[in-house]
Amino acid sequence: MEAASPKIPRVVIIGAGFGGLEAAKKLSGEAVQVTVVDRTNYHLFQPLLYQVATAALSPADIAAPVRAILSKCENMEVILAEVQSIDVNARKVKMVDGELDYDYLILATGARHSYFGHPEWEKLAPGLKSLEDAVEIRRRILMAFEYAEKISDEAARKAAMTFVIIGGGPTGVEMAGAIAEIARYTLAKDFRHIDPSQARVVLVESEPRVLAAFPEDLQISAMRQLVDLGIEVRTGIHATNLSEQGLQVGDEFIPCRVKIWAAGNNASFVGHSLGAPIDRVGRVIVNEDLSIPGHPEVQVIGDLANFSYQTGQPLPGVSPVAMQQGRHAARNILAMIDGRKPQRFWYFDKGSMATIGRNKAVADLKLVHLSGIPAWLAWLFVHIIFLVGFRNRLAVLFQWAWAYFSFNKGARLITRNFQSEQRPPA
Amino acid sequence: MEAASPKIPRVVIIGAGFGGLEAAKKLSGEAVQVTVVDRTNYHLFQPLLYQVATAALSPADIAAPVRAILSKCENMEVILAEVQSIDVNARKVKMVDGELDYDYLILATGARHSYFGHPEWEKLAPGLKSLEDAVEIRRRILMAFEYAEKISDEAARKAAMTFVIIGGGPTGVEMAGAIAEIARYTLAKDFRHIDPSQARVVLVESEPRVLAAFPEDLQISAMRQLVDLGIEVRTGIHATNLSEQGLQVGDEFIPCRVKIWAAGNNASFVGHSLGAPIDRVGRVIVNEDLSIPGHPEVQVIGDLANFSYQTGQPLPGVSPVAMQQGRHAARNILAMIDGRKPQRFWYFDKGSMATIGRNKAVADLKLVHLSGIPAWLAWLFVHIIFLVGFRNRLAVLFQWAWAYFSFNKGARLITRNFQSEQRPPA
Repeated sequence: MEAASPKIPRVVIIGAGFGGLEAAKKLSGEAVQVTVVDRTNYHLFQPLLYQVATAALSPADIAAPVRAILSKCENMEVILAEVQSIDVNARKVKMVDGELDYDYLILATGARHSYFGHPEWEKLAPGLKSLEDAVEIRRRILMAFEYAEKISDEAARKAAMTFVIIGGGPTGVEMAGAIAEIARYTLAKDFRHIDPSQARVVLVESEPRVLAAFPEDLQISAMRQLVDLGIEVRTGIHATNLSEQGLQVGDEFIPCRVKIWAAGNNASFVGHSLGAPIDRVGRVIVNEDLSIPGHPEVQVIGDLANFSYQTGQPLPGVSPVAMQQGRHAARNILAMIDGRKPQRFWYFDKGSMATIGRNKAVADLKLVHLSGIPAWLAWLFVHIIFLVGFRNRLAVLFQWAWAYFSFNKGARLITRNFQSEQRPPA
Repeated sequence: MEAASPKIPRVVIIGAGFGGLEAAKKLSGEAVQVTVVDRTNYHLFQPLLYQVATAALSPADIAAPVRAILSKCENMEVILAEVQSIDVNARKVKMVDGELDYDYLILATGARHSYFGHPEWEKLAPGLKSLEDAVEIRRRILMAFEYAEKISDEAARKAAMTFVIIGGGPTGVEMAGAIAEIARYTLAKDFRHIDPSQARVVLVESEPRVLAAFPEDLQISAMRQLVDLGIEVRTGIHATNLSEQGLQVGDEFIPCRVKIWAAGNNASFVGHSLGAPIDRVGRVIVNEDLSIPGHPEVQVIGDLANFSYQTGQPLPGVSPVAMQQGRHAARNILAMIDGRKPQRFWYFDKGSMATIGRNKAVADLKLVHLSGIPAWLAWLFVHIIFLVGFRNRLAVLFQWAWAYFSFNKGARLITRNFQSEQRPPA
């Protein structure tokens, strides 16, 4: 591998999510030297993260090594590093252990859940953004049933078998449905002192209906499908306080051991260092061409970007937006290198879908709205097609088929971290 | 589920490894009330743990929930709990959060690696007993290559690409072979600044040859197969000191970042509370019928037991011994309940095998010694047959077939624990 010659423009892509990876693929084989930086060594298929959290899939089923994905792109290198800030004037990326120069930058560091000014809630109610989050939530859900099986105190047992999901967007709806299904089907026969199918699953949403971004008929259908699964849906109400013992929702205190956060995101802190305008949730307000004011060489995409020119509202934080913006940012950079002007971004919205459980989903395909089995099949099809990497696709298909026909979940492991594994001395 | 009536004898099995689980299955449907206690919620197929540590398999591929395995055994309950000690006189099991009464006890708490009086080495050179260990070792191996790719200092890069395995038993041999294969095949094309196939793998063994428990011809064959894979085999020599920077082996200091411990075990500390004689490595010296002196109702099996009546040597800490002892202990308990005497245990040794890599293994089948491809196929066959649970068997077969034909490893994830995932504030 030769070192980057000074004549070849150097493009740095930060973040190997949907947006960053699409940008990288678009730049493969072009006359640019590309460095992809991510703080993990894998690309995560985030739409299926809730299946890891609910023991249907293993972490490796929804993650593929970034190096392996890009190994055939010879003009590309991959660095595992944590980015701290960007110096847009010096055109430098500052990392924990070094810095990188760039001629063009694509910033795609995404978002994490936000707790509306209550950071202390994170330990009580983990959100679902990373594999570590998912494994932790899986541990808490499974441990709650183990705890309930052991104790005799009726109130404590009820609290252990109550699961509250805060936030009724697609992630919250998917988590609620998956927990209800584990309890009703997967674990139903495994315990002697409790009946897991009596578990209580509560979904709390501050809007009048769940899936606020979906058309009204699908919102109503989703509510009905959730109720069919035995889930208590509480809408138009806020979680006002959280503790180990439970949470306060309006006038009611719900005693519960496991609380899951699916309400609201904050964009990555890296955006703050750009000196560009930032919105209320930390997103960088980009120009029409995805650049930031005064710096056409800096393109900001995906969940980190606030792009409001098309609908008057910021585009939603979903993978199709990130992927289309990734490809567009790459095209803009190639254009600038050729001496042409970067172009305005247009989002082509093919619709959106959310799954609730086995045979239960909603899909807004723009021309047609689907509910139930047709929506579920559409969801299955799209997610398998888009799963990165041949192996993962087959492995996931296999696990899903197995889970569907057997009602069994394959990844019901309660694992701890390495440090806590130490044993008392002999 | 009715509560155990006072007339039905209560059997407690501690440990859901190979021995404990076989005992439980043998007691299924008998006129006893069985409680299985384990500190994890899964049975671990330990012989394949090295494949999780080397990114070939996911944790869930080699682990099955204990509850699911035993869900059809109606006279059985499963408790997730950490046992601290046994009070053999009061016939009580003391756990962190409660106690259990028993009429008969099967103790199968196994072993963990021991550091020969250097507990401070555990952090430097993790051993391989649990899923947490395996994920930590996987993280260290993959991180070493990532680190080597980033740094420019030649000595530090070499140290990062040197992997030392301490202990040349089956686990050490398997780890060395698997790391060499990852470096030579899986990662070969993924980096730009290093050549992973230049990684140095060193196997240190204090005996004159590796696999000391195997016949001499297979030891020699294993050494040759290891060298074929490019592994440096250092025998007849001790690791005398370990540090972050490397390890001292005889007169030589080997700079290396990743050190893996595969030398020596200590039996579980729970055995010490029995008041029975204990050997040098913490194993309980059992009677001919697997009981302890004065307590025929306490049967000790598997890696925790020192049974020396058959060969004059303690039986090895391998799964066939544990499984046969598990069934025997269950039979003894049923005999005692019937008013008959417990019987002496006899181990039927069908042989042993160790794998080194793709098409590389040794197998001592007693009547015949195999090396290379036939041994490897025998190993593959036996391990797939014995994998607990239909799903795991198919999933593992699928991953192996994929890895074999593509040279790709499916589970190359560097994951951290939940706490370390917290981000700097925005």
